[in-house]
Amino acid sequence: MSAIRTLTRELRRLPGVGERTALRLAYHLVRGDKADVRRLARSLLDLADRVHPCPRCGNYCEAELCAVCEDPRRDPRVICVVEEAWEVGAIERAGRYRGLFHVLGGRLSPLDGIGPERLNIDRLLDRLEEAGEETREVILATNASVEGEATAVFLEGLLRPRGLRVTRLARGIPVGSDLEYVDGTTIAEALQGRKEM
Amino acid sequence: MSAIRTLTRELRRLPGVGERTALRLAYHLVRGDKADVRRLARSLLDLADRVHPCPRCGNYCEAELCAVCEDPRRDPRVICVVEEAWEVGAIERAGRYRGLFHVLGGRLSPLDGIGPERLNIDRLLDRLEEAGEETREVILATNASVEGEATAVFLEGLLRPRGLRVTRLARGIPVGSDLEYVDGTTIAEALQGRKEM
Repeated sequence: MSAIRTLTRELRRLPGVGERTALRLAYHLVRGDKADVRRLARSLLDLADRVHPCPRCGNYCEAELCAVCEDPRRDPRVICVVEEAWEVGAIERAGRYRGLFHVLGGRLSPLDGIGPERLNIDRLLDRLEEAGEETREVILATNASVEGEATAVFLEGLLRPRGLRVTRLARGIPVGSDLEYVDGTTIAEALQGRKEM
Repeated sequence: MSAIRTLTRELRRLPGVGERTALRLAYHLVRGDKADVRRLARSLLDLADRVHPCPRCGNYCEAELCAVCEDPRRDPRVICVVEEAWEVGAIERAGRYRGLFHVLGGRLSPLDGIGPERLNIDRLLDRLEEAGEETREVILATNASVEGEATAVFLEGLLRPRGLRVTRLARGIPVGSDLEYVDGTTIAEALQGRKEM
């Protein structure tokens, strides 16, 4: 098989890349600077060789532990649980959270055959066990989707009996939004969660 | 910089890939099978190492000449001129063309600073010179866009004086289309080019 054909086939495995896009990308690469193509290839090999899940929280890292778990200035009393590793970055960019993270690696989704055993939950329970009294609060920052909510409810059932404070992110109107464009369910949640001014 | 960050930066160079898509692709790759990532990297290195333009027609190839130029069963009397290498595939898939190709590597586009000297035109003229009497027809299969038409008209001006038959692809209603969805310019061209039944 020709190198262009082989590359097209490999690119097609990527999410959101169909036959046409794969072909267009392959021709873009073959037309362009060979140094760019080699740099992309090397960064893929580096990823495969160096990146692994943090054994404590499940986020990706290259060192023994991830940057958050390793940082002594983070507050070990709070653990924020997210579905996917890239969501750690979203919360970090907000710049307001100083606690630790735990990455589930997905959400409960019975229709896709994803039950609790497929998520990084056992490790969370072990971690809480090891930390003992130190952990005060677990923030369930799963997505505001049906599966995300179901995952949060499931986790709450496991965590509440341990005497931990279990919270979730507030639902409400996104900052900067016009009410006109916000869906009814969100407005209903925002009304219910309204605050004194 | 972390391997995920480096890969994200490299992926962002691809056409149509923004910050978000690049991050999503990087996390998709880090989550998945490392063997897949290595195979993608190897196919990129193969592309960089092995693929080069065919010195005769400008299509991409790995051997000394491309598969079409090398094939003794192709009719050397007809040369089909296309803008980009991937368009060779589109015509080959139609399965009706048995002549040779010539890839321009773009189209005239004065606004983008692309004049005739940036296209693979000199090589086409050399090729016709070398072929002498053998070439009977040049089919200008540039795209049906303003730039594609301008490129075809420019080439016609160079080729016609050489006593060659110079043709272009027919304009008309795409097979399988409802007239309702075909634009007026195409209908006008189809009317003008109408044929006896």
